[in-house]
Amino acid sequence: MRDVAVVGVGLHKWGELWDLSLRDMFTIASRNAMSDAGVDHIDSMYIGCMSGGLFAAQEHIGSLMADYLGVTPIPATRVESACASGGVAFRMAWMEVASGLSDIVLAGGVEKMTDISGDEATFALSTAADTEYEGYVGVTFPGLYAMMAVAHMQQYGTTMEQMSQVSVKSHQNGALNPNAQYPFEVSLDAVMNSTMVAEPLRLLHCSPITDGAAAVVLCSAELAKEKFKDHPIVVVKGSGQASDTIALHSRADITKISVIENAAKSAYDMAGVGPKDIDLTEVHDCFSIAEIMATEALGLFEPGKAGIAVENGETSREGSTPVNTSGGLKSKGHPVGATGIAQIIEITTQLRGEADKRQIDSPIIGLAQNMGGSGGSSTVHILERQ
Amino acid sequence: MRDVAVVGVGLHKWGELWDLSLRDMFTIASRNAMSDAGVDHIDSMYIGCMSGGLFAAQEHIGSLMADYLGVTPIPATRVESACASGGVAFRMAWMEVASGLSDIVLAGGVEKMTDISGDEATFALSTAADTEYEGYVGVTFPGLYAMMAVAHMQQYGTTMEQMSQVSVKSHQNGALNPNAQYPFEVSLDAVMNSTMVAEPLRLLHCSPITDGAAAVVLCSAELAKEKFKDHPIVVVKGSGQASDTIALHSRADITKISVIENAAKSAYDMAGVGPKDIDLTEVHDCFSIAEIMATEALGLFEPGKAGIAVENGETSREGSTPVNTSGGLKSKGHPVGATGIAQIIEITTQLRGEADKRQIDSPIIGLAQNMGGSGGSSTVHILERQ
Repeated sequence: MRDVAVVGVGLHKWGELWDLSLRDMFTIASRNAMSDAGVDHIDSMYIGCMSGGLFAAQEHIGSLMADYLGVTPIPATRVESACASGGVAFRMAWMEVASGLSDIVLAGGVEKMTDISGDEATFALSTAADTEYEGYVGVTFPGLYAMMAVAHMQQYGTTMEQMSQVSVKSHQNGALNPNAQYPFEVSLDAVMNSTMVAEPLRLLHCSPITDGAAAVVLCSAELAKEKFKDHPIVVVKGSGQASDTIALHSRADITKISVIENAAKSAYDMAGVGPKDIDLTEVHDCFSIAEIMATEALGLFEPGKAGIAVENGETSREGSTPVNTSGGLKSKGHPVGATGIAQIIEITTQLRGEADKRQIDSPIIGLAQNMGGSGGSSTVHILERQ
Repeated sequence: MRDVAVVGVGLHKWGELWDLSLRDMFTIASRNAMSDAGVDHIDSMYIGCMSGGLFAAQEHIGSLMADYLGVTPIPATRVESACASGGVAFRMAWMEVASGLSDIVLAGGVEKMTDISGDEATFALSTAADTEYEGYVGVTFPGLYAMMAVAHMQQYGTTMEQMSQVSVKSHQNGALNPNAQYPFEVSLDAVMNSTMVAEPLRLLHCSPITDGAAAVVLCSAELAKEKFKDHPIVVVKGSGQASDTIALHSRADITKISVIENAAKSAYDMAGVGPKDIDLTEVHDCFSIAEIMATEALGLFEPGKAGIAVENGETSREGSTPVNTSGGLKSKGHPVGATGIAQIIEITTQLRGEADKRQIDSPIIGLAQNMGGSGGSSTVHILERQ
């Protein structure tokens, strides 16, 4: 398999976008990515989308997007792994270029979540859990993560202040991200006193419902070095994907997220690096506790130590281990199919040195971790500036 | 990229299966495929499923199926391209093995369609069309294919008898398929006088609503020749996938299905063969007119000549160009995500010489064509017995 580079990134401002449809958002993000790369042709494309059917009454997403992007008859494949759909789309595009089957492939993600009611959206999201054993008995995602949070607090003494500081830090970063849904800071006091959703999780511990899309263009590293010289070359050094039971009740230990450990192991092994080599990380903070558990599962912190690290500022932009410089799902928003691609975009933008006010100091290696459900699936990608 | 072989196939009897859930069916078919191959381990898996969300209130299909199959933490990816989801799952598995990333990969498909009402199923299927421009104005798939049928009849003089003969032939084959949903013959008279659905299409011109799953195991051809000697080796010679506008109103000519032509061109080019080299074909006969149009788009017959060929018996098991020896979607059933995989299974079974009463005479090369919607997407795979 050959080396693959990310040569174009495309986003738009996320939010509650009643003027833009599913296809509009995807087309905008994809055109931005193709424009950033400087290509007018792609050989193939992948689209991460969790539930076109339940959110927008639209399946057959691949061809629809290829048509509106004006790239038919190329192969266009939609992939789904709940909230990890974007990460999987990126992995598929990486695989297709790495295999030699195609030279230039677009990986995008999209979700249109606000055209249905809040109740309907909560139901749609619940289909990322085990419907027969979790959804039908009324458990939704805040409840699942609340159980994980309680277990983590009991096992390790993780505190409400630590979980709340995750949100404070995310919003500090997101305030500097022009594409974020909620680009403003929040105080620790505001987080800790926000509306209770599922004890102990409060509103400002939860990522929002968002409309949005994101896209990147990949090509062989060789081609990138020849033809795509407008930006520093960012190469995919490792790709990992793993599955686990999607129902919490089947897991041996809910204070850790094994699927991230497994996906990370594959990615670290392929890249030939370890947690200590990572200069910045984007993790899947669908809830604040998820960021704490993800950074532990990635090996960035010892089990039970991530909460303290957040409190000490280690995960801030100026800290030793910057996490979610984009603002994370919390501040940037979480259009589920697009999230995994947006993580890749933040890492790429930082590695290129183009993150403007969010820029951290000369990063070389970055990691993006995307997750489905309460840890039923995860992807981990490691990118390197060359 | 390295050569890839199909070394295991797994099905179960399709139908209205109220005793089996989505996960049950997938697990049964996958275990059958792994047992047929003689493997107790797979490196990765792909699942074609059109709308777990709308049909069964369940997304996150990949991990769910990996869990119930007992193969976590391997990567498990669900892909969707409407009714071509199975064909795309097969292509992804082929690509992963061909790339060298994995050695043994399972490709499956599943759909649970009868747990909701007929109205709800019709709505769910309509999301394979362009919801904003077709679905919301009330067009459903029988209506879309009826328009294509009328155009084909006007352009080429294709007759009701010819379209009806497609169904008669499918049921002749399906009557010999123990896994078919409707394993019995139907008379020409019965087809031509069945209930009108969307003029000119009658009930027996339409494929049914079906619960079912299918799975195959792929590995490198080299490994197959070393270790999987229980059956003749069947190798993937060509893989093609294409997209087109999913809305009929955007097509220049609805008497042909361009997406099949494009997918076929890719597959023929990769395989280094043409239509005349194909010994048997499985096509996507969601409606009888679709079989006629597909065989023309594949180049098996000249445009406008497929109807006459069916009437002359050329597409029967004993004819020069056997089509849908499995019974096709019409008689075998059409659980949309599973259909593309079941086509691969029929071709593999025939090439192995294991199709029992349906067996045709010593085929060497077979082709499977799977399609999404009214021709918004298609895959074409060419398999060869070695």
